[in-house]
Amino acid sequence: MSAPAPLTALAAPRADRARVLGRMEALSRVGRLANGGLCRLALSDEETEARRMLIGWAQALGCTATLDPAGNLFLRMEGRRPDLAPLLVGSHLDSQPVGGHFDGVLGVVAGLECLELLVEAGGPERPVELVSWCNEEGVRFAPTTMGSAVHAGALPLARALATRDAEGTSLAAALERSAARLRAAGLTLTPRGLGGSYSAFVELHIEQGPVLEREGIAIGVVSDVQGLAQFRLSVAGTAGHAGAVPMAGREDALTRARAVMDRLDACLGALPGLRHTIGRIEVSPGAINTIPARVDFTLDARHPDPEVLARAIACVTAAEAEVTPLIHQAPVPFSPALRGSIAAACDALGLSRREMISGATHDAAQAAALCPAGMIFVPCSGGISHNENEHCPPEAVMNGTDVLAGTVFALAGKDPA
Amino acid sequence: MSAPAPLTALAAPRADRARVLGRMEALSRVGRLANGGLCRLALSDEETEARRMLIGWAQALGCTATLDPAGNLFLRMEGRRPDLAPLLVGSHLDSQPVGGHFDGVLGVVAGLECLELLVEAGGPERPVELVSWCNEEGVRFAPTTMGSAVHAGALPLARALATRDAEGTSLAAALERSAARLRAAGLTLTPRGLGGSYSAFVELHIEQGPVLEREGIAIGVVSDVQGLAQFRLSVAGTAGHAGAVPMAGREDALTRARAVMDRLDACLGALPGLRHTIGRIEVSPGAINTIPARVDFTLDARHPDPEVLARAIACVTAAEAEVTPLIHQAPVPFSPALRGSIAAACDALGLSRREMISGATHDAAQAAALCPAGMIFVPCSGGISHNENEHCPPEAVMNGTDVLAGTVFALAGKDPA
Repeated sequence: MSAPAPLTALAAPRADRARVLGRMEALSRVGRLANGGLCRLALSDEETEARRMLIGWAQALGCTATLDPAGNLFLRMEGRRPDLAPLLVGSHLDSQPVGGHFDGVLGVVAGLECLELLVEAGGPERPVELVSWCNEEGVRFAPTTMGSAVHAGALPLARALATRDAEGTSLAAALERSAARLRAAGLTLTPRGLGGSYSAFVELHIEQGPVLEREGIAIGVVSDVQGLAQFRLSVAGTAGHAGAVPMAGREDALTRARAVMDRLDACLGALPGLRHTIGRIEVSPGAINTIPARVDFTLDARHPDPEVLARAIACVTAAEAEVTPLIHQAPVPFSPALRGSIAAACDALGLSRREMISGATHDAAQAAALCPAGMIFVPCSGGISHNENEHCPPEAVMNGTDVLAGTVFALAGKDPA
Repeated sequence: MSAPAPLTALAAPRADRARVLGRMEALSRVGRLANGGLCRLALSDEETEARRMLIGWAQALGCTATLDPAGNLFLRMEGRRPDLAPLLVGSHLDSQPVGGHFDGVLGVVAGLECLELLVEAGGPERPVELVSWCNEEGVRFAPTTMGSAVHAGALPLARALATRDAEGTSLAAALERSAARLRAAGLTLTPRGLGGSYSAFVELHIEQGPVLEREGIAIGVVSDVQGLAQFRLSVAGTAGHAGAVPMAGREDALTRARAVMDRLDACLGALPGLRHTIGRIEVSPGAINTIPARVDFTLDARHPDPEVLARAIACVTAAEAEVTPLIHQAPVPFSPALRGSIAAACDALGLSRREMISGATHDAAQAAALCPAGMIFVPCSGGISHNENEHCPPEAVMNGTDVLAGTVFALAGKDPA
């Protein structure tokens, strides 16, 4: 697949600062936590409310809303040539349990702004669809990028629908509840199928790392998404009373799990550039005066080179634990032609840019299986993400939106020329 | 305080095997888990149902039920000399989240059997009260031995009542619900005050350790409860995206917490005879793809020597963490006279015995502040406790009950002589 040739070379108008920042602010109130962070879990009532607002804004522009069976929401602006494969833009509206106000939502609001600018410019030549992918974060329902993975055929729909959250609610039930609330709010939401033919997918996102800010660069043109392997590891022991069982005879699952973690650190730490994280631990039975009988923990490993990632996977599968692979995504290179379009948009705006890998995975890595895909990064303060201190300066928000608009205008054509 | 002189020296009759084992079996069904274990958390509907059964059995013997403000349940059998301070026997009916069918309930059922035997023998000289202490396990509400600590004046009532479980329910609310259910079941439950004057407290319990079984000894006469210090430790870091933040710049709270645990192991492991356990860990935000921002864990340390326990506490308070002391119980020596009474009961029955320390803390350690206190241990299989594999052979159940009855008959006097 190669990126489509631009239909026109006209420069896009600049994004409307008050409109973009106003919508970011409006959405930041939907799920805001007392500490200033955001909890807008996939298909929760909060995410559903954010989707309701988005659909309202898009329908005011004449867009039609469709929902695929995996919960991905599409807002289609018809083009003057409906026969052309649509251009897809967007990101996601769900958040971490204690997340920030830019991860995901920036790419959705900026995509909406592109639709606004296209309408003001007389409408696109090629149809443009704004997508809000379902359950990108993968925290309420595992794995991450679930909706785009199902849409692109990488994850079976039935498996996704059967996934349950910590309360035992299935994705299918959560999706039904969310869609019912949107329809009860008077919105028209037409079912659509999985997959489809798109001319390209472009996603604007905060970097979630420190590189752009450190180097004082406005825009990251993403070359690849690094590969990802996630696991659950379980270590067994024997429970016992904390006071009554002598230290010598203990089979403490946590002591064993800590030894497994130490060996993983040594093995994975020897692989240059590998990033690995233990993000979750559950100790059973979890009582202050009981020797742990079982410890479950997660491991997340990432690298842009498939060979290094394979060596990391070998470290994990050799661990003295019950190892359950959860997800394995090969590194994804993005479309060179699309990278060129993004770079051209930066240059037209006079914004500094650099090519960079994405440390995090994104829906664009799944969409790349369907069509040429690309990503635009903007800096976030201190590289901090996935918590309440996540921040993207207004200038970076506007720079990213302008570059996205320039790319969209080039790929969708604001005018038949 | 010294133990009261026996009123009579008559031997007690043997406990009724079918009645004791039948009641153990009946109570084992109240909160039984699918894996065969028991979940009967303090003041839960399950524990309330077990209390309802106990009150029914005791009232059939002519006992009156009273409840103190901390939720401790007393069943009083009047003596021919009501002016004498009552003898207290009992233990607790609550369990760990995945506990066994002997921890606590054995001492209650055996105490009830003593009342049965006293009635059959014509009634006691001294009043006898069977107590089921509230929230001994300390897992739904912290700390452990909460009810007996409040009754004995070691823990302020207001603090106990304000304690909340993981769902946010206060002990006060749970207690009100439990008492209301008992009264709704038609039971008379008279309020009583905290504290009081008792001639002695005797508690039968499974050892929860491997010593008696290993040595083939029928009865442990407990000399001391080892000292206990429990803490919560919190380690802070900075959250970040697992893929986007390079390893070098990370402030991973779990990596830091593991280093704190390693140093604690080294410091505490150097103290001979010290037992220490990390039983619970919470990682925040606890997402598979987020670097931990905070780790909270518990530490439980025990030793029979106050000086060694003090050195352990010094290790913990020197840890590079926010350290919150939860409970500190000095080692408790039991009444030598009462140990003599228990030993005499063993000898009259021809049962082997040894003096031993208790590795676990128990309500008897709190009661020792009010009156002479003592404990009788029986072996449990493999020393296993606090899980579904906890087992006490029927012979050990009956041996323990017989020794408790012999001690009670000696201390309460079945006959004025």
